[in-house]
Amino acid sequence: MNGRYELTIDKILISSVRNNPDQIISYQGRENITYREFNEVVRNLASSLLRMGVKKGDKVAVIDWDTNRYLEAYYAIPMIGAVLHTVNIRYPPEIIFYSMQHAEDKYVIIRDEFVPIIAKNKSMFSFIKKWIIYSENGKIPEVLEPFENYDNLIKNGERMELPELSEDTVATTFYTSGTTGLPKGVSFTHRQIVLHALASISGLSDPPIGLNSGDVMMPLVPMFHVHSWGIPYSIIMKGLKYVLPGRYDIPLILKIMEKEKVTVSAMVPSIVYMIINNPEASKILSGNHLRIVVGGGALPRGLAEKARSMGIETIAGYGMSETAPILTLSTFTNKVMEMDDQKKTDFRIKTGVPVNLVDLRVFDKEGREVPYDSKTIGEIVVRAPWLTKEYVKDPEGTEKLWKNGWMHTGDLAVVDSYGYISIVDREKDAVKSGGEFIPTLILEDLISTTPGVNQVAVVGKKDEKWGERPVAFLTVSESYNEQDLKKHMDTYVEAGRIAKFWLPDEYRIIKEFTLTSTGKIDKKPLRKNLQGME
Amino acid sequence: MNGRYELTIDKILISSVRNNPDQIISYQGRENITYREFNEVVRNLASSLLRMGVKKGDKVAVIDWDTNRYLEAYYAIPMIGAVLHTVNIRYPPEIIFYSMQHAEDKYVIIRDEFVPIIAKNKSMFSFIKKWIIYSENGKIPEVLEPFENYDNLIKNGERMELPELSEDTVATTFYTSGTTGLPKGVSFTHRQIVLHALASISGLSDPPIGLNSGDVMMPLVPMFHVHSWGIPYSIIMKGLKYVLPGRYDIPLILKIMEKEKVTVSAMVPSIVYMIINNPEASKILSGNHLRIVVGGGALPRGLAEKARSMGIETIAGYGMSETAPILTLSTFTNKVMEMDDQKKTDFRIKTGVPVNLVDLRVFDKEGREVPYDSKTIGEIVVRAPWLTKEYVKDPEGTEKLWKNGWMHTGDLAVVDSYGYISIVDREKDAVKSGGEFIPTLILEDLISTTPGVNQVAVVGKKDEKWGERPVAFLTVSESYNEQDLKKHMDTYVEAGRIAKFWLPDEYRIIKEFTLTSTGKIDKKPLRKNLQGME
Repeated sequence: MNGRYELTIDKILISSVRNNPDQIISYQGRENITYREFNEVVRNLASSLLRMGVKKGDKVAVIDWDTNRYLEAYYAIPMIGAVLHTVNIRYPPEIIFYSMQHAEDKYVIIRDEFVPIIAKNKSMFSFIKKWIIYSENGKIPEVLEPFENYDNLIKNGERMELPELSEDTVATTFYTSGTTGLPKGVSFTHRQIVLHALASISGLSDPPIGLNSGDVMMPLVPMFHVHSWGIPYSIIMKGLKYVLPGRYDIPLILKIMEKEKVTVSAMVPSIVYMIINNPEASKILSGNHLRIVVGGGALPRGLAEKARSMGIETIAGYGMSETAPILTLSTFTNKVMEMDDQKKTDFRIKTGVPVNLVDLRVFDKEGREVPYDSKTIGEIVVRAPWLTKEYVKDPEGTEKLWKNGWMHTGDLAVVDSYGYISIVDREKDAVKSGGEFIPTLILEDLISTTPGVNQVAVVGKKDEKWGERPVAFLTVSESYNEQDLKKHMDTYVEAGRIAKFWLPDEYRIIKEFTLTSTGKIDKKPLRKNLQGME
Repeated sequence: MNGRYELTIDKILISSVRNNPDQIISYQGRENITYREFNEVVRNLASSLLRMGVKKGDKVAVIDWDTNRYLEAYYAIPMIGAVLHTVNIRYPPEIIFYSMQHAEDKYVIIRDEFVPIIAKNKSMFSFIKKWIIYSENGKIPEVLEPFENYDNLIKNGERMELPELSEDTVATTFYTSGTTGLPKGVSFTHRQIVLHALASISGLSDPPIGLNSGDVMMPLVPMFHVHSWGIPYSIIMKGLKYVLPGRYDIPLILKIMEKEKVTVSAMVPSIVYMIINNPEASKILSGNHLRIVVGGGALPRGLAEKARSMGIETIAGYGMSETAPILTLSTFTNKVMEMDDQKKTDFRIKTGVPVNLVDLRVFDKEGREVPYDSKTIGEIVVRAPWLTKEYVKDPEGTEKLWKNGWMHTGDLAVVDSYGYISIVDREKDAVKSGGEFIPTLILEDLISTTPGVNQVAVVGKKDEKWGERPVAFLTVSESYNEQDLKKHMDTYVEAGRIAKFWLPDEYRIIKEFTLTSTGKIDKKPLRKNLQGME
């Protein structure tokens, strides 16, 4: 035992529950339990799963919104050495089936409202040994066999001894919502999750987030999506009041934020957009000094500025499913701290700087680091303690991901003289015109600041001469005027901030964007739209 | 390589130097280098040591004050797989010799002013292969053989490739200043140091410290003492401006604090006392919003209150040489955050709550956790990722330390209903009267709040009837009056805060206390004094 201490997920609970036994975990502001009670429920659930026969390495899937039940599963399943599979419930049933079969799930914890979708295709899921169903109203739909009522598993019963686990035991697995082809599985160990949580806390302690023990956190990143950026582990480690939103419903979220006095959140840009444009938002959020970490897509300047005008601090975060996910945060380094407010916003919308222990480089094609000149574009590659070892059962994909001992993100970026990274594009989203990349994220950022523009996405249209040319799709409000937009963009060309050939050939207004399962703008239908026009 | 990422000390530098290349490391406010330059010097030194023939596992001792040279050694030595031995320069030469021989040191980095002490006994140190000497004035005393001028080692030269290290490689060793007998050696691995730094940052991010990227930190814990509480690693990891004081000199320290705008420090109570009682202190420190972590002895209430009246925030920290050292901090949990100022002070002077990943319990004699009732006394035992595996070459001491798989601290404590620990005594310092422990730290704390009392130490005097009885030694100012003190103490008995039999039999005024090598009040001469009186 001397000095030997494995970084396993149960260790998160030990000091946290001890130091904050009366801290609250609130489900939608209507069902509160304390950390002490949560710890009991987790250990009851773990014991019940062991009694049910769940073995080390068994995959246990969860199909649910962001609920207290899900949070219990986040801890209890890995704590018995089983693997938590967070199923993406935004997938169509065929893809859900694919991911569960590919992961070799044996047990499923499922919320009653998802049972009918599965039941319709239940013959496909014959490999599942047991369905563990819960219902908020206590009525379990008995259409899946064999099943168990979740409520029975969290009752006090004989406490089983938890197995001693190596920190390298796999704790979680999930499937990435790739934009092409079938999703790929990734997995993370206990050690990776614990280190990710600890480094996230360190990163988020910097301004303008300044995470501390007085905060109330309500993450709005789905728990099926890259374990909600690891927040279910880092909040508890930090001992914070934790607010779970259930199914996302903006007016309800705002009401919960008001009631529970939420001070910190995390979400994708489209959720920020919906929240701050809700008519109730100003009134509700003005007093909270809310700080939001925005990830899963670039933070548009217009959005950051609007949020700031409402007293809400935003910063960007960056990572991928393969990276647990946090790699960078655009928290302020010492140098940025000294800048004025306007200048700080330039940095808060960048992709950020690597958090502790992340070795992140931007490589040119020859594998040399690009100069920190805000101009030279390269690919982000990374080493860190919390990167997936492999794509599940995909040695080819794994080899490509880990070429030369660096994880290749496929994201293209520049670096400024302060070391802040700005992603200019996903490699696969980039518009390549005349052999040069046109960074669509920069265009989208600038277009978004024009009055009347709500949301924007730039995609490539095939072009005989140039290979591809950029086209901008917009949702707009009444005050929008294309001439103003073009003039606005010309000023950036004149100021030297963008190249003239980067300017979109067309600005097309659409009613609304299709969103991906994780709430980002889906560019696939836009490209299809352009092809259809050819 | 996939996903494999060792927690080695070089990883601290990678993201930190990258994100903060122009951040300053200041030696006494008069010699500044940037992180970028520091990184170069460290890598030059590492290369030179490799060329000199330093091998993996070789012990390299450092004999120095808190200087930039020492900081370079903190990184370069472990980064080549060698072991940094931080020699306690407050020991007499015989004990220095003992610790260096016991550690099997092969190389020594030494500041010129310490050379004469060694040279006087140089025949004892024949096991040293090379003396690496530096001098601020460039004149190297050539009295130790063979020697090398440190300045030659940090010049740009051919860069050697650093060895790939396992995170379980030993990085540091040092000898604990035990109060009885010869000092004992402890050692820490790269992994332990990295995790300790990361968890320290997380803990210190809470109020009232709120450590963040804008802070300027000047630790005043000697670098030979438990690697300055790990701060040389955590400051750099956090990317902060780092101020090194050199040899401790209170007026100079205050001048440096003023010049470099120091915002965070760490020190033992006697240094806090000397700093805040310096006539210049109010003027210099009032604007800095200085926050101080106080460890190595209980934080007396009187001291915390006086500091607070000057706008200085203090909290307590606790740990031992065996624990790297940080185990607890008296930062504010959510519950304490809600209290008023007066009540918060009750908590800031407690021993604190365990930091992330520390599993700390207070056990009674049967190995059961004591109730959280602020009354029941037990021994602090602990498990954590950064505890020494063993006492060097001392299997017996190791076995006692690690009895039943828990590290036994020998510290006696109570726990309050909020989970805050208060050390009531060192097991070996406790006064045992009529079979009951009298917690001297509690008495010292209460006595210290009496007007006119400066410093206090309570020790046990042999007593025929009771075994031992407490005697208080005091340094006092003019306003002191023994009758007032006794009345003051009686009010605590009446309020039920202390037992009547705890009251010291005598209050003895002395001119000054002898301090230990780490600046704590040394109780040994006081006990001797009492024996002499019998």
